[in-house]
Amino acid sequence: MRATLLYGADDVRVEDVADPGIRNPSDAVVRIVLSCICGSDLWPYKSLPPTDHPRQMGHEFLGVVEDTGAGVRGIRPGDVVVAPFVYADNTCEYCREGLQTSCVHGGRWGLDGVDGGQGQAVRVPHADGTLVRLPVGEDSELLPDLLTLSDILCTGYHAARTAGVRRGDSVTVVGDGAVGLAAVISAKLLGAEQIILMGRHRVRTDLGRAFGATDVVADRGEEGIARVRELTGGQGTRRVLECVGLTDALVQSFGAVRAGGTISRVGAPQSADVPFGFADFLRNITLTGGVAPARAYIEELMPYILDGSITPGRVFDRTMGLEDIADGYRAMNDRQALKVLIRP
Amino acid sequence: MRATLLYGADDVRVEDVADPGIRNPSDAVVRIVLSCICGSDLWPYKSLPPTDHPRQMGHEFLGVVEDTGAGVRGIRPGDVVVAPFVYADNTCEYCREGLQTSCVHGGRWGLDGVDGGQGQAVRVPHADGTLVRLPVGEDSELLPDLLTLSDILCTGYHAARTAGVRRGDSVTVVGDGAVGLAAVISAKLLGAEQIILMGRHRVRTDLGRAFGATDVVADRGEEGIARVRELTGGQGTRRVLECVGLTDALVQSFGAVRAGGTISRVGAPQSADVPFGFADFLRNITLTGGVAPARAYIEELMPYILDGSITPGRVFDRTMGLEDIADGYRAMNDRQALKVLIRP
Repeated sequence: MRATLLYGADDVRVEDVADPGIRNPSDAVVRIVLSCICGSDLWPYKSLPPTDHPRQMGHEFLGVVEDTGAGVRGIRPGDVVVAPFVYADNTCEYCREGLQTSCVHGGRWGLDGVDGGQGQAVRVPHADGTLVRLPVGEDSELLPDLLTLSDILCTGYHAARTAGVRRGDSVTVVGDGAVGLAAVISAKLLGAEQIILMGRHRVRTDLGRAFGATDVVADRGEEGIARVRELTGGQGTRRVLECVGLTDALVQSFGAVRAGGTISRVGAPQSADVPFGFADFLRNITLTGGVAPARAYIEELMPYILDGSITPGRVFDRTMGLEDIADGYRAMNDRQALKVLIRP
Repeated sequence: MRATLLYGADDVRVEDVADPGIRNPSDAVVRIVLSCICGSDLWPYKSLPPTDHPRQMGHEFLGVVEDTGAGVRGIRPGDVVVAPFVYADNTCEYCREGLQTSCVHGGRWGLDGVDGGQGQAVRVPHADGTLVRLPVGEDSELLPDLLTLSDILCTGYHAARTAGVRRGDSVTVVGDGAVGLAAVISAKLLGAEQIILMGRHRVRTDLGRAFGATDVVADRGEEGIARVRELTGGQGTRRVLECVGLTDALVQSFGAVRAGGTISRVGAPQSADVPFGFADFLRNITLTGGVAPARAYIEELMPYILDGSITPGRVFDRTMGLEDIADGYRAMNDRQALKVLIRP
């Protein structure tokens, strides 16, 4: 089959790799109908040293089950399914707590002999635990929306949930990428009254407004913080959802959060340290979040997509075939595209 | 009156200062019966550059009300009262949320024309909000225990509460100072089943065991972390109470905490950065805590002292007169004393 391989920074290739097949009784093979490129794929795309052992890319996909191992009970060939961005048995101690990203049998797509999601098919370990059946056909117009259950919608929701967003809350979302926009959707779902979106890309922040942002702050740094404070009676917001991962975004988050408030960080950290010293200790700031256990949220969020009350698939502003995926990486990296949908 | 002044590192003097008197209608003047030296007093004691504008020291005290301003309603001369380590009006938006350390009218002892606690008397701003009446006489044997409501007991309790300690939990307490020992008391009060105390001072960790620690880990760094993991089936504890403030203690805390768990930091941070990178992001660790709003907890904790179910005053292992307080600083700094009680 064809799959996406990263050979180094700016070197994405689509090549033939071995067709996936059942190896373990708990496996399924899924033919991919839709996948996409993640903002987090851009980190290695920008920085991976050249290698002869390329990374198989992609961790967001949905598709049709083609084959299942002898031990698989919950899904069967022909099912349309979505996969969270890590696989998990969904039965271990961590999974039962809703922390499938720490599953003792879990792992990441594209590593350890498991295919990546930006290809034609995937062997899915622990298929019963990992995959969630979608009650639609493979030609449904909702598929782009449902694909966001794989990562970004659940990641934005994880930010809002772990930050403790409640009805009537004030929330700042730092970052107008796909995850930031999903965080806006999520804050609104949880009843936030004021949602301040910090971002400077007009097309994206306009989509953020459509998703529920009540205010947009295009300024960054000290000016951005001052603007958030202006919008909140000088106090900052009780919840801040940090959807970028860079230190500047964290600094902005600490500046935007009210004393006693919570920052939830779901942007993959690009630094080993967090600027969290005495002044914010005196203000009793909490820093929470982390990699989102998407699997924990899929069933909870799916109904909002099915009934049309949220439309997260609007983040996809470009669609490409698999063979053209290198153009998709380039477009996202150059901020020409917000998020690229791939139809293998 | 006599008061304690810090003129620079290792330069504590007891000198005459102006007698406190009522300045504002909400003030009270309290004659101090008991005060003490805090671990956090040792930071400036170790590092303050020589100055002609000495700091008036001390933020933990209890005593007898001598005078009240015209606006004071809740207390009257003769009352025995304890003060939290910051003053607050206890009516503002933050105070009503239990975050009196962010009171819009609050402040710290020894600053801005307000006396420190290591003296003979104190002018107490916002006396109605700040002071809590004690239902004992000034000769009560419980006074040392009740004095811990001023800071260390409430600080340890803040760690346990913000970490979310619940019945049956496993908890690691990092640090065997007075706050660490108070955190042990607090974790036990909240029903923790396993309380691992990390500390290497035998006398202190023995007291920790008496307070409820089920295990003591004397090792530090990697060995200490490995030992905590051994004691917890390889996972670490769900809650870690960081009661030191140094980066090493934070590193230990991140090592000791279970995936999905919470570190509450109440040791005053001595570094501007927290070592909290990608690996702990992947484990969904929460960092919470901060300076304890002691005022929020005093009424809740006092009954446990009055009925003898907790005895936090056992952390005081030396008593001195005010004139000898420099010896007390030295003894604590040299770890000859755990916590020094001062009788003016």
